[in-house]
Formats: sequence, C-alpha cells, structure tokens
Amino acid sequence: MNQFEAKVSIRLRPSVLDPAGEAIKSAASKLGVEGINSLRIGKLIEVNLEAKEEKEAKEKIELLCDRLFANKVIEDFDYDLKEVNE
Amino acid sequence: MNQFEAKVSIRLRPSVLDPAGEAIKSAASKLGVEGINSLRIGKLIEVNLEAKEEKEAKEKIELLCDRLFANKVIEDFDYDLKEVNE
Repeated sequence: MNQFEAKVSIRLRPSVLDPAGEAIKSAASKLGVEGINSLRIGKLIEVNLEAKEEKEAKEKIELLCDRLFANKVIEDFDYDLKEVNE
Repeated sequence: MNQFEAKVSIRLRPSVLDPAGEAIKSAASKLGVEGINSLRIGKLIEVNLEAKEEKEAKEKIELLCDRLFANKVIEDFDYDLKEVNE
C-alpha cells in the first residue's frame, strides 16, 4: 500500500452568508487593520491514508468529501492529493 | 493600493486532541473507507486585502493571525500570500 496525503478545503458557497467571517472582519478594523475586502472562514481537513494507487486514493477522498466533510447545500470542496514516501 | 489574496491555514497543534476529527475518522470506517491513518480538522481563512506592497500585506496578515484567527495555545498557523491583478 502507498501513503497519500490529502488537503481538503471546504468553503461556504459564495451565495451563503458568513457571519463569523464578518465578525472577524469588523474586529480587524477595530484592531486597526484596514483594507480588508473580503474574509471567509472555511475548513481545512488533512487526511493521511493508504491506497494501492492514486486513483483509489482519489475515490476515497471524493467519497469522504461528498458524504462526510462537506454539506453540499451550502459548501463546496476541493482537494490536493499527493503521494508521500516514508 | 495593490490587491492581495491570503490563504491562512489554522491547525490544531500536534499535541492537541481532535475529537471531531476522530469522529469523522470512525464515521469513514463505517462508510467502508479503510486505511485512514490520521484525520485532523483545521480552519481555512481566505482574505482579500489591499496594501501598498507585499511587506505591508504580510504584516497585516501576521497581525490578524496572531491576534484574531488563531488561539496560539492550541493552534499553529501558516499562510500563502499572493498579489492579484484586477
């Protein structure tokens, strides 16, 4: 089995409001950091997994994203997958 | 002013337990996805901001990470910063 490392990014869809992001944006302005045009908070899920080949690793990650990581009504996902050698 | 885009990754420190990650890991196994060695959930914060130059943008992002985004007792952060042309 080969080892793979996936970094999955889960973002709120652009049409979905992000009140936590807005709160941080306004806190930034109180902190004196000006010039922030947008700020959105998403999730970063890092997975180390075993698979025979890249195709199998991709299938596993896509199934996980689809069924467990993202709520597809309000979120989009993408991922980077790379093989890691021990 | 130039436009910059920062992708900030906030991760739990390796010594900090991640019960939500463990719950997803065990749900993955119930879903039939085997071979997951580790799964950790972090935050991904995407910021678009204006700054005169890259150095100023970096300073702003580091201040935000330090003071607002991450809880440095339990979390680490890193970021990618790039200039975006309209």
